Amino acid sequence: MTRFVTLAGRFLAGVAFIALSAAPARAGAVDIAEFTLDNGLRLVVVPDHRAPVVTHMAWYRIGSADEPAGKSGIAHFFEHLMFKGTKTHPAGEFSAAVAEIGGEENAFTSYDYTAYYQQVAPSALESMMAFESDRMRNLVLTDDVIGPERDVILEERRMRIDNSPEAVLDEEIDATMYQNHPYGVPVIGWLHEMEQLNRVDAVDFYDRYYAPNNAIVVIAGDVKPEEARAIAERTYGKVPRGPELPPRIRPEEPEQNTKRTVTLADARVSVPTFRTQWLAPSYRTAEKGEAEALDLLSEILGGGLRSRLYQELVVKRGIAANAGAWYMGDAIDDTIIAVTATPRGDATLEEVEKAVMDEVARIAAEGVTADELAAAKKRYVRSLVFARDDQSDMARIYGTTLATGGTVADVAEWPARIEAVGADAVKAAAQKYLDAGRSVTGYLLPKQDKAG
Amino acid sequence: MTRFVTLAGRFLAGVAFIALSAAPARAGAVDIAEFTLDNGLRLVVVPDHRAPVVTHMAWYRIGSADEPAGKSGIAHFFEHLMFKGTKTHPAGEFSAAVAEIGGEENAFTSYDYTAYYQQVAPSALESMMAFESDRMRNLVLTDDVIGPERDVILEERRMRIDNSPEAVLDEEIDATMYQNHPYGVPVIGWLHEMEQLNRVDAVDFYDRYYAPNNAIVVIAGDVKPEEARAIAERTYGKVPRGPELPPRIRPEEPEQNTKRTVTLADARVSVPTFRTQWLAPSYRTAEKGEAEALDLLSEILGGGLRSRLYQELVVKRGIAANAGAWYMGDAIDDTIIAVTATPRGDATLEEVEKAVMDEVARIAAEGVTADELAAAKKRYVRSLVFARDDQSDMARIYGTTLATGGTVADVAEWPARIEAVGADAVKAAAQKYLDAGRSVTGYLLPKQDKAG
Repeated sequence: MTRFVTLAGRFLAGVAFIALSAAPARAGAVDIAEFTLDNGLRLVVVPDHRAPVVTHMAWYRIGSADEPAGKSGIAHFFEHLMFKGTKTHPAGEFSAAVAEIGGEENAFTSYDYTAYYQQVAPSALESMMAFESDRMRNLVLTDDVIGPERDVILEERRMRIDNSPEAVLDEEIDATMYQNHPYGVPVIGWLHEMEQLNRVDAVDFYDRYYAPNNAIVVIAGDVKPEEARAIAERTYGKVPRGPELPPRIRPEEPEQNTKRTVTLADARVSVPTFRTQWLAPSYRTAEKGEAEALDLLSEILGGGLRSRLYQELVVKRGIAANAGAWYMGDAIDDTIIAVTATPRGDATLEEVEKAVMDEVARIAAEGVTADELAAAKKRYVRSLVFARDDQSDMARIYGTTLATGGTVADVAEWPARIEAVGADAVKAAAQKYLDAGRSVTGYLLPKQDKAG
Repeated sequence: MTRFVTLAGRFLAGVAFIALSAAPARAGAVDIAEFTLDNGLRLVVVPDHRAPVVTHMAWYRIGSADEPAGKSGIAHFFEHLMFKGTKTHPAGEFSAAVAEIGGEENAFTSYDYTAYYQQVAPSALESMMAFESDRMRNLVLTDDVIGPERDVILEERRMRIDNSPEAVLDEEIDATMYQNHPYGVPVIGWLHEMEQLNRVDAVDFYDRYYAPNNAIVVIAGDVKPEEARAIAERTYGKVPRGPELPPRIRPEEPEQNTKRTVTLADARVSVPTFRTQWLAPSYRTAEKGEAEALDLLSEILGGGLRSRLYQELVVKRGIAANAGAWYMGDAIDDTIIAVTATPRGDATLEEVEKAVMDEVARIAAEGVTADELAAAKKRYVRSLVFARDDQSDMARIYGTTLATGGTVADVAEWPARIEAVGADAVKAAAQKYLDAGRSVTGYLLPKQDKAG
């Protein structure tokens, strides 16, 4: 069983990240059914009858950015605890049931949500929903369960973060950017706080956030909406409503007036690299059309092999091994747009950074051409087609959108909103957000005599 | 009436700061009386019969680092609201009473405490204590009071912070250092949060924190302890105990693995300057003797005209207009040790920064001499003598110490603890804390063509 926490790899992911995340997360679709059960659970059904497969995802509107101060890591810790036993199903029984029928399962935690999913044959859907609704309320959270699993997340942190200079730098860059908002706290948690997480924290968290009125269940696949609804009533429908939760209002960032840098020199680094990022509005916080413009801006600037950064630095000048940009639009609060590059051959990091920032300055000063914009839109539309082709991607798109405050209609309308973006809006977004004097840059350097 | 918030001027204060704050804040004294009233109020009396003057200070164990997330500035806002009217004394009456008898009054808010004081003739002490105990519980907090005073603090922020590149940079340096702990949030508050502070916030805050069991009253001057106690019983003694408050445990900093910089370029800056700071334990969080060693380390490195930085950069090489170091030991949680310098003449900022960091590296590598250490201890002792000579300084020392978790005995023992520090401990502190790879450096630059 693999479980992951959605935080790794941003420092070097660049190009790949776009294809996997930013674009498909806004794909449109049709024939979507949406229900709300009496206990407040929202159910979204995305029919897909091409094969006898169904994807069942339970999303909770709770992520690391909702954690109480000093309790970082509790959301992700809870993702682990959900795989422990309930009053009626001992630990491992759910996972064994999935494996027995050749199914797949996973779970993930991010800043704004935590989700669990299984992909199985349609005949097993009710069984999956019964298991999932059971662990929504009936987990056995004793010290015997908590202690060993806390050791597991601590080991996960050591492995994923502390063993990796990239990941350590990643954390400190984000914490340097977000000085007031909890997106500055890593999803996996700060080590010293993870060590203190205990049974009381877990029970409080479970009782508060794991409830049908804080959940969104997405079912994509070979199932009729009314049938899915009937199963949901028989399974999730039995779980009593939890406490009413206040709106998810987090402390906002103050105005950033400075250029900040974060440098990590480590003996394990062989090739230096850098990333510059800026605070930018998300789809939820942006003015109308602005998030769409940021998506296209990042695509034109550094969203793949056709992008300006790749063409200029990698293809034309040959000074970089990679170069890219990304924008993480799916967030409840203000988010990140970033550029990155890694030198190649004799090129220095300074040279590569300057080349990237020259492109950034150029797109802000001169804007984009009509051809570039049309091509970027086309690439987005194509990526949507691919996303629609993948059942679990589609389920994930609806889950992400709904868990970050969007609606089913937002998903459907998104392609038209992308199409509506004009070149002036892309230029305006670059001018407004890509200001070098208000950026955060991370440098990952090979260890030399002097640390700084 | 002047009120101030203890946050300004650290960027450039350096040398002066030491003399005013770090050293005297640990001064020793004798004949101190300490009482606790039935309602939990702690009373400290510091006799000083040289002149018919008495200083009355009410300290609350509430500062900006205790504020709820998203409510930054409420502690300082409350300091302002305390000058508004109560049920029995309309706004201005207390201040007028102080002025009428030629007294002085002031108030200040810091990360860990908020304090109010008056200096008057002994005959007016009971009246002062009656006024002060009245406003501890009887403030009238209506929207008519809150709204206009919020405008005042917003104007104060604009004037003190947003109009000053030094202050803006100061805020962002601290927020870049403290990525989890609330010392990263400015005492005056983030503008966008101050704008939202309202009556409900103020009433909640008042009811929670303004109570005798969260207060320390320090009386220094021409009054007998038993007499002061009797007056306290007649005034503060009538105020009912407030809610029991949990220990002041704030989120701690994660390990810092990076070197960070924060750069502000502004047209109003004529001479560039820089400050490098490190996270260091406070008197409350340090291992035995470590905070004392940090005090002496900052003193030897940059605590005045005799210090290494001043002698090397200003006197000998003439490349700096000023150079200094400071350590803010009086804090509940991990605090700051810092160095700063400003170039003079043709010297560049880079040259001056390198010279400072060379001295830092040298003191960590080679330690300090016995002569330097003895001289630094002597300077500290002298500064204590000066502090003892000032009644309100003495009152402030006791208030600060007690409000940050120390005791009256700590104040008395402090000179002996400073005397006990060995050269090895100073070197060890430098090696442990002054690591360039884990520092935060702020650059204040004249605005040039490119912002970054």
